[in-house]
Amino acid sequence: MISALDGRVTNRGVDRYRQLEGRHLDPVSPWTFGPEIIALKVRTRQSRIYFAEAARTRVFDEKGKLDVARDLYQMQDYVHQVLSFEVREKEPVRVEKMVAFYTSRDNAINEPLVNAGKDIVGYPAFARAFEDHARAWEELWDLCDVRVPNDESVQFLLRLHISHVLQVCSPHTADIDAGVPARGLNGEAYRGHVFWDELYIYPFLNFRLPEVTRGLLMYRYRRLGEARRAAKEAGYSGAMFPWQSGSDGQEETQEVHLNPNSGKWEPDLSRNQRHVSAAIFYNIWHYYQATGDFEFLLDRGAEMMLEIARFWASIAHFNPERDRYEIHGVMGPDEFHEKYPGSEEEGLRNNAYTNVMVAWICETALKLLGLLPARRRKTLRARIGLADEVERWKEMGRKMLVPFHEDPDLGPGIISQFEGYETLTELDWDAYRNKYGNIQRLDRILRAEGDDPNRYKLTKQADTVLLFFLFPEEELARIFERLGYEFAPDTVRKNVAYYDSRTSHGSTLSLIAHAHVLANLDPKSSWERYTVALGCEVSDIQGGTTREGIHLGVMAGTLDLIQRAYLGTSVSDGVLRFDPKPVGKLDGLSFPMRFRGTWLQITVEGGKLTVIAREDDAGRPIKVGVGDEVRELTAGGRYTFAI
Amino acid sequence: MISALDGRVTNRGVDRYRQLEGRHLDPVSPWTFGPEIIALKVRTRQSRIYFAEAARTRVFDEKGKLDVARDLYQMQDYVHQVLSFEVREKEPVRVEKMVAFYTSRDNAINEPLVNAGKDIVGYPAFARAFEDHARAWEELWDLCDVRVPNDESVQFLLRLHISHVLQVCSPHTADIDAGVPARGLNGEAYRGHVFWDELYIYPFLNFRLPEVTRGLLMYRYRRLGEARRAAKEAGYSGAMFPWQSGSDGQEETQEVHLNPNSGKWEPDLSRNQRHVSAAIFYNIWHYYQATGDFEFLLDRGAEMMLEIARFWASIAHFNPERDRYEIHGVMGPDEFHEKYPGSEEEGLRNNAYTNVMVAWICETALKLLGLLPARRRKTLRARIGLADEVERWKEMGRKMLVPFHEDPDLGPGIISQFEGYETLTELDWDAYRNKYGNIQRLDRILRAEGDDPNRYKLTKQADTVLLFFLFPEEELARIFERLGYEFAPDTVRKNVAYYDSRTSHGSTLSLIAHAHVLANLDPKSSWERYTVALGCEVSDIQGGTTREGIHLGVMAGTLDLIQRAYLGTSVSDGVLRFDPKPVGKLDGLSFPMRFRGTWLQITVEGGKLTVIAREDDAGRPIKVGVGDEVRELTAGGRYTFAI
Repeated sequence: MISALDGRVTNRGVDRYRQLEGRHLDPVSPWTFGPEIIALKVRTRQSRIYFAEAARTRVFDEKGKLDVARDLYQMQDYVHQVLSFEVREKEPVRVEKMVAFYTSRDNAINEPLVNAGKDIVGYPAFARAFEDHARAWEELWDLCDVRVPNDESVQFLLRLHISHVLQVCSPHTADIDAGVPARGLNGEAYRGHVFWDELYIYPFLNFRLPEVTRGLLMYRYRRLGEARRAAKEAGYSGAMFPWQSGSDGQEETQEVHLNPNSGKWEPDLSRNQRHVSAAIFYNIWHYYQATGDFEFLLDRGAEMMLEIARFWASIAHFNPERDRYEIHGVMGPDEFHEKYPGSEEEGLRNNAYTNVMVAWICETALKLLGLLPARRRKTLRARIGLADEVERWKEMGRKMLVPFHEDPDLGPGIISQFEGYETLTELDWDAYRNKYGNIQRLDRILRAEGDDPNRYKLTKQADTVLLFFLFPEEELARIFERLGYEFAPDTVRKNVAYYDSRTSHGSTLSLIAHAHVLANLDPKSSWERYTVALGCEVSDIQGGTTREGIHLGVMAGTLDLIQRAYLGTSVSDGVLRFDPKPVGKLDGLSFPMRFRGTWLQITVEGGKLTVIAREDDAGRPIKVGVGDEVRELTAGGRYTFAI
Repeated sequence: MISALDGRVTNRGVDRYRQLEGRHLDPVSPWTFGPEIIALKVRTRQSRIYFAEAARTRVFDEKGKLDVARDLYQMQDYVHQVLSFEVREKEPVRVEKMVAFYTSRDNAINEPLVNAGKDIVGYPAFARAFEDHARAWEELWDLCDVRVPNDESVQFLLRLHISHVLQVCSPHTADIDAGVPARGLNGEAYRGHVFWDELYIYPFLNFRLPEVTRGLLMYRYRRLGEARRAAKEAGYSGAMFPWQSGSDGQEETQEVHLNPNSGKWEPDLSRNQRHVSAAIFYNIWHYYQATGDFEFLLDRGAEMMLEIARFWASIAHFNPERDRYEIHGVMGPDEFHEKYPGSEEEGLRNNAYTNVMVAWICETALKLLGLLPARRRKTLRARIGLADEVERWKEMGRKMLVPFHEDPDLGPGIISQFEGYETLTELDWDAYRNKYGNIQRLDRILRAEGDDPNRYKLTKQADTVLLFFLFPEEELARIFERLGYEFAPDTVRKNVAYYDSRTSHGSTLSLIAHAHVLANLDPKSSWERYTVALGCEVSDIQGGTTREGIHLGVMAGTLDLIQRAYLGTSVSDGVLRFDPKPVGKLDGLSFPMRFRGTWLQITVEGGKLTVIAREDDAGRPIKVGVGDEVRELTAGGRYTFAI
């Protein structure tokens, strides 16, 4: 048999990237550490990161280790051993290949090859390593399992998703300079870039492994300088984080995009999704809400939040005619709309999602300034040069423009995804469905036809609807009220219905947002979408994208849906609140959850929600509530709410 | 004029290392970024870490930037620009050279040269950069200043030391994989190795910048695997941290040592200073005491502490004849004694400092296990495979052997630095002082004479005395009591006097320990030593070692002395206690201090100690006490104790 290490591997996992250079490794050298161990060292071509692998191959029969003959073959970028040994029928032979892997970015190393060799020499046998592995997972399951006793398939898929989230975002991540790549760590799509998917992932982590969120937020903090530079270069203040982030945090978004339907390279304006900075602000605040980690807020979080607020204040402009602040030239999360049809200008005017987020950001940034101790506030303001723009935040919290449709047929209250959306052409959805079957990527279909998605009332994924996803209804109503807009009892229902019928759900994340907002409005439809989202990888619902890498946001989103949508979990005024929705399939649901350092066990069964504070926990007393009923729990305490 | 970057630099800063290889950089390439910027990239020879520098040189007269002629000269390992411009008498010209510096170990980079170039292009003018620099320091001074209004020289030296501590251990360190090198960052002595100096440095940081301590403790945590490997290889359990730690945490202590007095290479057994692992245990516990950072304790601290306790339990052996646990083959902090004179065996038997620390460690490890929530305790015990050795800890807390002198002339209560110390020969100190003047390094003197320091009752630096330095007297008395040894009212005084007269203070750290223990016993003598320690760098008291790098431990030790010795600060049962000693020179002393998240201002003046909780602080109520008087303070609260 042959045991090899191959440095000639290339990136070939995504069909439509095949025309691009896929070779990213330069050979350095093969190596051996004694007769059993082969090793190989390579270096990335541009970033010059060294990688070393060392592999120990051993052969065992039932009596013990076999003394096998070994022949070594090595090239600069490849090394293998030929192991020769006799096998006989019905006499099992076990081959154990253990591999140590180091990069020059690892902490606590001498040099990758040296440490790979040192490690592999001391490795235990596979059985022992597997035990350690299993125990490490048990530790994680103890903190992160979600039990759904009444639906085996849901249970299985939730655990699949938990295991994938924890493979990408684990206690190991907390100590390395890693962000959350959109497609996890097991596929090449999007080239490992970091988008905004963390918005869907942190709610699960915040309440279980907050140190992992903190580590991942540090990925952003370390790139704050680059975000400042990007804002400055674009003529803005503060920090403008990139839509696609990579090694040093500069904008990595492609400027052209290959349409596999037409084989043509088309311009790509998606970098104008400035809303990623709003998501980062939101994430820091919610991390703080869930954990009470004031130190992080003081040391890092506040600086990022204030710089993001400054960015929004500088990209917005005041329109005296409307007495409103407006933001032009940006895109919402819906990637079908990059600009107005036929326009030379990039981006759109007053994306509702962005503008409402900005109103909330301005309000929250002011709240944050109030939270900071006076000295810290002073030094932080001095450090970032924060001046009277704080006054502008006050104004923007009350005067951001939110566009509404003015179509008398629809009646009032339909929020326009962006200004002018209502003037676009309605698409003949049935015609396209009939013609193409899967129309999730209508943009590619339309462009391949020589048409332009910008012309139509169509949406790739939740955009305006995200507002109902991110904010509890009362909070959103408060934001609208302060802005002087009506937020009627039917605002959510009307807008969800309007956009749902115009959304292709071309991003899997869209299913999450719609399942969430329908949890209350239409539990049956919510559950249908939920099960589609749950099956997204197993069923490869986008027809081939799963092999390009998992959709980490949607996987984590299915967990967030349990917690935030179906259980209606939120934090306000330091109270952990639940507002359970009627979803019968989840009866018996039970999971651990950590709130501000205290471990809780949450169980929903037979119309009751029980919260137990773990008896042995050293956490502080915390408050939980359902509706108007708020209880304080100390270690070992429990309370059951009727729901 | 010439502006250059030179990659041919070598390590030539320490005379006695000159025979060793001093060239550590291989050239990679010179570079330019536009006409004003030269750059150079090199790589370390063994560890293959890339370094890149980019320098922008600009010339200004009073009117603005000059357009100067530039000639480039570059070799593989050197690059310079010749800038030509006219100067005239009385017309000042300003040259600004700004340098960006990156290594391949930095977070958030693409590649060192790329990022150095990107940074330097966007650098502000020097005046602006200096402003930012000054503000960053103001932030640190606001948290870390120590004011001594009545002694200008003490004030100056304290601030010198604070500034050096904060250059090596700063909020920047918190996010990189760095330990605390013995000689700071500005000299080559000890080759940047990490010893145990953090024991002297953390008390200052714990109460001001605890996130810096936490980051530095992570340096140890990341090397826990290597410490486990070292213990295993030596036949022990748990984790044995190295005496000298470097990149990956393996033992880096030299095995031979150049004696500059004789020019000979002599064997060096100092790696047997296993007490470094005791110091790490102590540091984690005291970090937790000062900060209340239970999360760190749960996630990382406890694992290290338990593994260290296991190591001690396995290196100790039970002697049934004495009904005591003994530790053989180790050295105490006193480096003059490496083994018994003439013995082939390395190390000594029952170093008192080590054995008492181990008794305390065993007791504290049990306390720690009790603190952990049951689930965490269970998973942690499973992870490290902790079994019934816990029973052994209980025993060791009661049965560690502490050797005492049995010399009737001395009377009872003199702790033997190690077993048999009393049988060694007394040194004729006066004769050596007369002959050599400075006898701090008596080991080198004696060896150069063909003699052996192991033969004599002489001590390089505080060893037994460190017990009185690290533990408040009551705590030490309790430990001795549990061990079944008498701890008399005069134990401290007798032992300090005995060892003081036999100590050469060949390590600057020794001055710190003795000044500390004398604070109560002999304030005048304490203050004399304190002022020597304060002046150690400015006066270069070791005659030439300052240029080899600062003595970071002693610098921080002078700050710790203020806080822990003269103010008698300690934490017990969650109360921050003060026990001020009579040191008149410090009247008016005032400094900020952070205890468990709450910022305090401490002032000692006219026989009163005032504690003020900062009004604007979001910290929680904390308890402070002097003697039997304990007060709770909330934000804005203050209390004045009579002292």
